[in-house]
Amino acid sequence: MVKHSELRPSSLALDLSVDCPQLTPAASAFPAAVSDYYQFDELLATEEKKLRIKIRQFMEKEVAPIIPKYWETAEFPYHLIPKLGSLGFTGGIIKGYGCPGLSATAYAMCISEMARVDASIASFCLVQSCLAMLSIAQLGSEAQKKKYLPSLSKMHKVCVYALTEPDHGSDASTLSTIADKVPGGWVLNGQKRWPANSSFADVFVVLARNTSTNQINGFIVHGGSPGLKISKIENKMSLRVVQNCNIQLDNVFVPDDDRLPGANSFQDLVDALSVARIMVAWVSIGIAMGVYDACLRYLLERKQFGAPLAAFQLNQEKLVRMLGNIQAMSVLGWRLCKLHDTIKITSGQASLGKAWITKQARETAAIGRELLGGNGIVTDFHVGKAFCDMESVYSYEGSYDVNALIAAREITGISSIRPSSRL
Amino acid sequence: MVKHSELRPSSLALDLSVDCPQLTPAASAFPAAVSDYYQFDELLATEEKKLRIKIRQFMEKEVAPIIPKYWETAEFPYHLIPKLGSLGFTGGIIKGYGCPGLSATAYAMCISEMARVDASIASFCLVQSCLAMLSIAQLGSEAQKKKYLPSLSKMHKVCVYALTEPDHGSDASTLSTIADKVPGGWVLNGQKRWPANSSFADVFVVLARNTSTNQINGFIVHGGSPGLKISKIENKMSLRVVQNCNIQLDNVFVPDDDRLPGANSFQDLVDALSVARIMVAWVSIGIAMGVYDACLRYLLERKQFGAPLAAFQLNQEKLVRMLGNIQAMSVLGWRLCKLHDTIKITSGQASLGKAWITKQARETAAIGRELLGGNGIVTDFHVGKAFCDMESVYSYEGSYDVNALIAAREITGISSIRPSSRL
Amino acid sequence: MVKHSELRPSSLALDLSVDCPQLTPAASAFPAAVSDYYQFDELLATEEKKLRIKIRQFMEKEVAPIIPKYWETAEFPYHLIPKLGSLGFTGGIIKGYGCPGLSATAYAMCISEMARVDASIASFCLVQSCLAMLSIAQLGSEAQKKKYLPSLSKMHKVCVYALTEPDHGSDASTLSTIADKVPGGWVLNGQKRWPANSSFADVFVVLARNTSTNQINGFIVHGGSPGLKISKIENKMSLRVVQNCNIQLDNVFVPDDDRLPGANSFQDLVDALSVARIMVAWVSIGIAMGVYDACLRYLLERKQFGAPLAAFQLNQEKLVRMLGNIQAMSVLGWRLCKLHDTIKITSGQASLGKAWITKQARETAAIGRELLGGNGIVTDFHVGKAFCDMESVYSYEGSYDVNALIAAREITGISSIRPSSRL
Amino acid sequence: MVKHSELRPSSLALDLSVDCPQLTPAASAFPAAVSDYYQFDELLATEEKKLRIKIRQFMEKEVAPIIPKYWETAEFPYHLIPKLGSLGFTGGIIKGYGCPGLSATAYAMCISEMARVDASIASFCLVQSCLAMLSIAQLGSEAQKKKYLPSLSKMHKVCVYALTEPDHGSDASTLSTIADKVPGGWVLNGQKRWPANSSFADVFVVLARNTSTNQINGFIVHGGSPGLKISKIENKMSLRVVQNCNIQLDNVFVPDDDRLPGANSFQDLVDALSVARIMVAWVSIGIAMGVYDACLRYLLERKQFGAPLAAFQLNQEKLVRMLGNIQAMSVLGWRLCKLHDTIKITSGQASLGKAWITKQARETAAIGRELLGGNGIVTDFHVGKAFCDMESVYSYEGSYDVNALIAAREITGISSIRPSSRL
Repeated sequence: MVKHSELRPSSLALDLSVDCPQLTPAASAFPAAVSDYYQFDELLATEEKKLRIKIRQFMEKEVAPIIPKYWETAEFPYHLIPKLGSLGFTGGIIKGYGCPGLSATAYAMCISEMARVDASIASFCLVQSCLAMLSIAQLGSEAQKKKYLPSLSKMHKVCVYALTEPDHGSDASTLSTIADKVPGGWVLNGQKRWPANSSFADVFVVLARNTSTNQINGFIVHGGSPGLKISKIENKMSLRVVQNCNIQLDNVFVPDDDRLPGANSFQDLVDALSVARIMVAWVSIGIAMGVYDACLRYLLERKQFGAPLAAFQLNQEKLVRMLGNIQAMSVLGWRLCKLHDTIKITSGQASLGKAWITKQARETAAIGRELLGGNGIVTDFHVGKAFCDMESVYSYEGSYDVNALIAAREITGISSIRPSSRL
Repeated sequence: MVKHSELRPSSLALDLSVDCPQLTPAASAFPAAVSDYYQFDELLATEEKKLRIKIRQFMEKEVAPIIPKYWETAEFPYHLIPKLGSLGFTGGIIKGYGCPGLSATAYAMCISEMARVDASIASFCLVQSCLAMLSIAQLGSEAQKKKYLPSLSKMHKVCVYALTEPDHGSDASTLSTIADKVPGGWVLNGQKRWPANSSFADVFVVLARNTSTNQINGFIVHGGSPGLKISKIENKMSLRVVQNCNIQLDNVFVPDDDRLPGANSFQDLVDALSVARIMVAWVSIGIAMGVYDACLRYLLERKQFGAPLAAFQLNQEKLVRMLGNIQAMSVLGWRLCKLHDTIKITSGQASLGKAWITKQARETAAIGRELLGGNGIVTDFHVGKAFCDMESVYSYEGSYDVNALIAAREITGISSIRPSSRL
Repeated sequence: MVKHSELRPSSLALDLSVDCPQLTPAASAFPAAVSDYYQFDELLATEEKKLRIKIRQFMEKEVAPIIPKYWETAEFPYHLIPKLGSLGFTGGIIKGYGCPGLSATAYAMCISEMARVDASIASFCLVQSCLAMLSIAQLGSEAQKKKYLPSLSKMHKVCVYALTEPDHGSDASTLSTIADKVPGGWVLNGQKRWPANSSFADVFVVLARNTSTNQINGFIVHGGSPGLKISKIENKMSLRVVQNCNIQLDNVFVPDDDRLPGANSFQDLVDALSVARIMVAWVSIGIAMGVYDACLRYLLERKQFGAPLAAFQLNQEKLVRMLGNIQAMSVLGWRLCKLHDTIKITSGQASLGKAWITKQARETAAIGRELLGGNGIVTDFHVGKAFCDMESVYSYEGSYDVNALIAAREITGISSIRPSSRL
Repeated sequence: MVKHSELRPSSLALDLSVDCPQLTPAASAFPAAVSDYYQFDELLATEEKKLRIKIRQFMEKEVAPIIPKYWETAEFPYHLIPKLGSLGFTGGIIKGYGCPGLSATAYAMCISEMARVDASIASFCLVQSCLAMLSIAQLGSEAQKKKYLPSLSKMHKVCVYALTEPDHGSDASTLSTIADKVPGGWVLNGQKRWPANSSFADVFVVLARNTSTNQINGFIVHGGSPGLKISKIENKMSLRVVQNCNIQLDNVFVPDDDRLPGANSFQDLVDALSVARIMVAWVSIGIAMGVYDACLRYLLERKQFGAPLAAFQLNQEKLVRMLGNIQAMSVLGWRLCKLHDTIKITSGQASLGKAWITKQARETAAIGRELLGGNGIVTDFHVGKAFCDMESVYSYEGSYDVNALIAAREITGISSIRPSSRL
């Protein structure tokens, strides 16, 4: 019989950085950013470059050293929220109300630099700025904007975008949560699934079906409202730091003042979703960059058969494939931002970008995972975590397939999203 | 400022199986085994079929319901060890000494059925039977076999195969741990990395370089030996249930009786490694089968846009690609077993099989992860866990690239494993 | 202005085999068959092995040296037809009527050995034996079988299977050619596209819609019948040796005796199509084998940077990927044959096999094309031709997608082949 | 016995455009250019846009209708040469000497528009402008530039770049052709393989090893020189319109005035090769664009199962994947041009671009070939030809692997191109 007493207490654990220094990232130093092979930075304005460096330094210093432990325990580093708020990019492309009014490109740099170190932190910020706040900015009244955006832009408050439901993921437009008009306000009933940040958020933008019009409307719900029940989704293998939740709305009352007047149909949500898709694409670009940076350092440092791993043809080709993907994703992502800033981007363009870029990023992360061999499954080496996180990014804000079909509908004029009625 | 008090205690968590039954596996029921499209079972002997069903039932009933929690907390379900021991397959292809003397095919069925539900449990057993025990059976003295194999075959004791080192993964043949001859025995010094089960094992098969001959020798080391320090590798994103460890050997004494007399060079290890590679291929086949089973049920049960997900062309093609992979992997894996049983299999044949099959299985797992969308990142739905576990299997017992180059060396007569001396 | 007079007459052309012998296949020697790494031959009966060797030798000696010129000029080597007929395999699995009654496995060996050297010749034979003759054998009257099969089995006559139409490829079941009942027989009107061998065939099995029942019936039409117009499809880049044609039927009269009594609906054709799909899969296996054989020889013989190309890691991995594909395709194709011979194979099983195997073969051919570099675009080196031919094989007898959806319909119970009626 | 007399003379051939109009491109109309989904044109200067349209119109009107026949017969449409010359883009980025001094972006537009309709014509022009003429412009004396460039820029004369040899493809830097110094000039001996245009060219830029310095030098050789023997490479399945040749140099005398004074080592050739690699990347972008254009039209026009092929999910996803590739390739190719124009591009950057872009283009062409089903193997439908042509483009100017390793050498500082000396 196994003698469990022989299991050594973890307090006697070897300190990997002491005993196997060659296996660990140099003390507290995230790998250098080395993926800009085609001088992408030259396409940026000076302010965009500065912001990029600022976020990069914050992430490398404040987040990289601590985040593997949070990922391991699936907890959120709440202490980072005020620091993130102070960096001045929250609110992203929103102008006024304390928001920075960044170009899409500038915000893309913020998002990708965050995701380069940790995609959960990037996703947390993206939900705040590009989904919840942007919905208030685009669909809210002047009073709502003044009331909510300033504190959200400093991250004094955290917000949530509650669209997806247990039974409605890809077909979110057919959601089931209902809003009944009652004197002085609305009563919401239904379930949501996945909304990030929900377990600790102050402000929820909830999409629900107006039972009078049968159209989707938007409502602001406050954390702690009676009838609002929230439970964290456990046992994730991806974006473990993000606090995704199941939400139950049992007769949650929303006063008239908290209905978003601009949200009168699903179509009204599409613009914010397009922005979010561009930024999700940039999350994946950031992931790919971080993976590449980690791989290049690892392959140059680690030796096998008497030579650095970087000297092997099979590894070299993989590095080049990753780097080629990153160059292409970056300029394509830049083009998406420019389409947003200068022309009215179509939902098909945003969807194609999200689909294509996350596909290439997924390939890049998988190559990186392979390149690190056994050490690629330990999150301390960064790549294993990034590989796992990439899976959410590939699937959220519209899966690859759904985004592909949205783009195809625009290209061909034919929708194939719904299957045949012959079923 | 975020009010953390608003975070709801987990005791109020929704019970997902009650509130969202459509999202969860039917109560304690692992999805049915539906991937044998080409009647592979007809290639099996009656005994092989019976053993397969026995292991399948054990895994579905005893392991499936509990394993996600162990994966989440990265702990091993020690209470399963006696049950696993009682199933009568431990020791695998070894004949005598209490071992079952199974055909390679029969043991492959055991391994794949285990991996179908959980690859960590399969890996635990594989290390015990196909690496550590097999080394003792092939390289040990009669006395050693009589002393160790019977209790190991009942899993009264757990064993470890300690080959890989921090600086020697792919090039394990150049390992650095040394064994110095001293009166009455040997003194071992060095480090090992990755050996599974180490934190609670009784018996370690340790490979070390004999400083007299400069050749690799094998030694049996006992858990708790003075100078043997073990620490668990934390923060894994794959096979989290497996207890991989770093091992330090500081002047560990091994009496002469515990040196394996048949292990006089790296070449002596190759046969056991070939068996292990075949079985690792079957681990990946089992993973692919479990992923397919879970996907088919999920796609038939879950509806979007008013139709089961199984009704969408894009999903159907993915199902077929997965199922095609599984049919091909299975018959190829069967052929590998037959080559082992009837002819002396070459290391190139084993390596090609391991490389090719795990590559297809990795593709299969990635398709499955995609098919489950958001629910594919929650381990309760099985696929997310299997997807992560697949990464270890792709890399251990020789990475894809290393196995490919071993096979190529045999095919071409030219070794390209070591890079140029021009470096 | 360009002086065209400077263009040297081709009579002065260098003889490549003299001036650049290192670039050409050794004189009239097709590369040796070296792809049976897993001793597939052991799965064959002695007779199957003998037949395989016989076909291989014929193809290497009689076909390999001459076929590139026929491919170049898109002509058929008519002189080979009697020789092919004398090899004794025509009629394939048909029993009696002069046919050999081979096992599916035995015929698969014939087909793959032909395709290994030239897929056009294999396709020519496949159409004769597995489509046209098999339809007569399965759906014809005793008199028809006695009348047609003996001469067809010796290739004294050549036959055609005319199903596909200009407007009906993937949806052949909805074909438009009509058969009107008239006294003493039938009058056929319509168009066919693609039927191989049509420009020189004696016997056409034509599928047409019976205007009384609105079901598909089968008819035997004779070459040279009044109203039968045939034109060769020009400008192909694949299977250029195969004489695919457009056929026009203008009031072609067929006597009652030449209607196939067993062909009363599309469903009656399905069994022959399943056999054909298995054999098309084996065409692609043969292509892959020939490509591998040519690549291995080329990489061992050709040097760059002072070493054989076979010494480069990137090339070695490609060789192994090809060889792994071939082992898997072969055993899977063997399983398909066994399913046919011992159990009633379903159309889903045949379709999955065709889809999966041709997908892997297409990948294998593309790797081979790449491995040969510039010489991979010259058909003398074999691989360029095989690469092009593979494209037809991937698309005929049901494209990859159509076969995948047929299999998926069987697996899921849901047909997704027809798109939504919402269009 | 087959009655060959039944073979209908081709004069009776059906006119496909009359009998099966639905199968053929609309009369003489190449499909519309519809792949600029991300408004790439906005990145172009007005002049660049104008030039692009001019070339596009020329190719659609003058080349598209006639080129399939030339491809079929592997002949060059000599009558197009003066017209090509009159379009004013020959000489490309060269300034002065009658050359247009275009931006790299402008020339890339010309090349891609040519390749969109026919990659052979694009390759013909690329050899003239970016290899042979550019070498004279970069490495020639003032007298040589004045003597040769003006007539070449009008295509009054055609030129050749003769680097590759039968035994030196990827390792061209180790070429074997020798140049011996003799009084008044040089005597060249050796062989070249592949140089395009050689069978009718006036001017050959020949690279040969100076036997005094052992370095590579460049020489201008005139068509028809004594000792210069040229034979066309027959039996190609790709770029069949391009007249690739084997060249034998038997004591060919070159006067001192025709040695390029700037070509004193292989390193001197690298800049022109980098330009050529950028432009080859654009050839592949053009191929991908033409394939997409043809596919979109085909899928919208052709119906199966009662719906346009464009209505099927599986086809829609393929269209989007192609279109995503094209957007990414285009902006990445644009970035390459900008790197060339504004900064000194490195050979690693050019190689990564060539490797990555041609890889994506190859995937795109293969998807397109598949989308057209059977009609995808007939060159009249354009895609089959483009698919075949893509193979040369993937392999010439450095194969994918060689370019990847060149880029990797720059990224890692380690060359892995030559295999180990242990061989």
